[in-house]
Amino acid sequence: MSAPRLIGLDWGTSSLRAYLLGGNGTILEARSADSGIMRVESGGFAQALDAACADWLAAHPALPLLLAGMIGSKQGWLEAPYCACPADARVISQSLVRLQLGDTRSTHIVPGLSTTGVSGVPDVMRGEETQIIGALPATGSHLAVLPGTHSKWAWVENGTVRGFASFMTGEVYAALTGHTILGRMMRADAPHDGAAFARGVAYGREAPEALLSRMFSARTLGLFGQLGQAALPSYLSGLLIGSEIGAAMRMTPHAGTVTILGNPNLTQRYTEAFALAGIPTQAGTADCAALGLWRIALAAGLIGVD
Amino acid sequence: MSAPRLIGLDWGTSSLRAYLLGGNGTILEARSADSGIMRVESGGFAQALDAACADWLAAHPALPLLLAGMIGSKQGWLEAPYCACPADARVISQSLVRLQLGDTRSTHIVPGLSTTGVSGVPDVMRGEETQIIGALPATGSHLAVLPGTHSKWAWVENGTVRGFASFMTGEVYAALTGHTILGRMMRADAPHDGAAFARGVAYGREAPEALLSRMFSARTLGLFGQLGQAALPSYLSGLLIGSEIGAAMRMTPHAGTVTILGNPNLTQRYTEAFALAGIPTQAGTADCAALGLWRIALAAGLIGVD
Repeated sequence: MSAPRLIGLDWGTSSLRAYLLGGNGTILEARSADSGIMRVESGGFAQALDAACADWLAAHPALPLLLAGMIGSKQGWLEAPYCACPADARVISQSLVRLQLGDTRSTHIVPGLSTTGVSGVPDVMRGEETQIIGALPATGSHLAVLPGTHSKWAWVENGTVRGFASFMTGEVYAALTGHTILGRMMRADAPHDGAAFARGVAYGREAPEALLSRMFSARTLGLFGQLGQAALPSYLSGLLIGSEIGAAMRMTPHAGTVTILGNPNLTQRYTEAFALAGIPTQAGTADCAALGLWRIALAAGLIGVD
Repeated sequence: MSAPRLIGLDWGTSSLRAYLLGGNGTILEARSADSGIMRVESGGFAQALDAACADWLAAHPALPLLLAGMIGSKQGWLEAPYCACPADARVISQSLVRLQLGDTRSTHIVPGLSTTGVSGVPDVMRGEETQIIGALPATGSHLAVLPGTHSKWAWVENGTVRGFASFMTGEVYAALTGHTILGRMMRADAPHDGAAFARGVAYGREAPEALLSRMFSARTLGLFGQLGQAALPSYLSGLLIGSEIGAAMRMTPHAGTVTILGNPNLTQRYTEAFALAGIPTQAGTADCAALGLWRIALAAGLIGVD
């Protein structure tokens, strides 16, 4: 086992994942905790850090520490202002924010990214930039999707995030099923229904501009007995994901393989949806944030080249 | 004052409106009550009818009675199955459902309409068909929008509803502001902000296919200080209405004046949004349901021609 070189944390809204990294960003040890920033009292971040990895900190007092994700937001430990696209690991590393921890130790926090789309409207991500930096090779043109509450689609060239777009797919799904008439006919705990999901994907992708209208089909197909209560959640999920894919693919000239960076469940759903659309995909590695932290720390000079 | 000829009720989910109609559908008297079907216990509809117009029923024991709206839904008094488009007043009148009220009186209930769009997916309306029949002339080609919780867009030719599409605009607005991150930065009770609304309309209408993405701007424009908390509700409202208009106008070859049938507040918002898009509009009369009830009753032979 190589010597520890970096302690890195991907610290999100609802949970965190901590990595003890060796040479080349090899994961020596990884841990999860549910102390996401929304679950930690303001002022309690140092304690949450200790709870996650006091043993690592004690055993390796000189090891650099790097945090990414919502921990750098206004609601986090210390705000790391967004870094504007285009941005690669080097550009990001120049905007790290330093935080003193007691007398002898400090940490750095990775900023999120901002981009300005058409019409001058800004978009932001925080945490995903580190996954992207870790997942994609330093050369070539890539399209990555990070599905979730707020999906992010990022256009990456030679390791540089050129631009990206957020889609509120996951949160809209939760709001529609939980707080509109569409949820009333659904059996919320139903298992995934592949056929209903596929039907939703096709209908959503065909005309994403009509989403506000087509989502009503998650009621009428139930009313007319074409889809049962257990099929409707998968159908609506497919409809939203299909709309997302249909819209996002129009925003990009990218014609190659799409890289999916998500949890296993979402990666599976998006892989199915892309396959229905005839778009080739590959799944990123589960812990790409670890390699992203490593690459950003390296670019920042926090650790030396091996 | 002409003699009463018909008692008609537009009986919706949250409220009802009752009309005493004279010759040519002239409104002799009109009343509102908040005894919509969701506020009436099952089995309490006869009592709610009496509460609304027992005096009319007693004074005119032979007068025909016609009910339209959600009162004919599964959750209403008696289900009046949907009538398939294309449908005019005559087709609708052939599908009225009759309900006996005590020994000496009956009422008829107007069915909703169904249509089958592309991909074989059904859509439905209930209550709006009566407003459309009342609002539009018997000749010419018309496009009508009935904004609301579920907006309806209807294509009408020579008094016949050829087809229509629902848009969940109002309910999605409520779900997004009440149950997603977008609502957190908003001052919910803020007055209408015309400039923010117009900005939202333009951004939504420009690319309705990107709605799932563009709605996130109601967060980022707040984050970046471009729109204040008081402006964001109007902005999001405009974004959704702009997306609706952009999508709906692509579904129809209609190039003339659009008829808006809604409450004064929504009519005003949609009029603003259409004006920004350079689309001419006219507002329908407030009580078009009354004339719709009259025309359907006439077509059904419930009342004789004057």
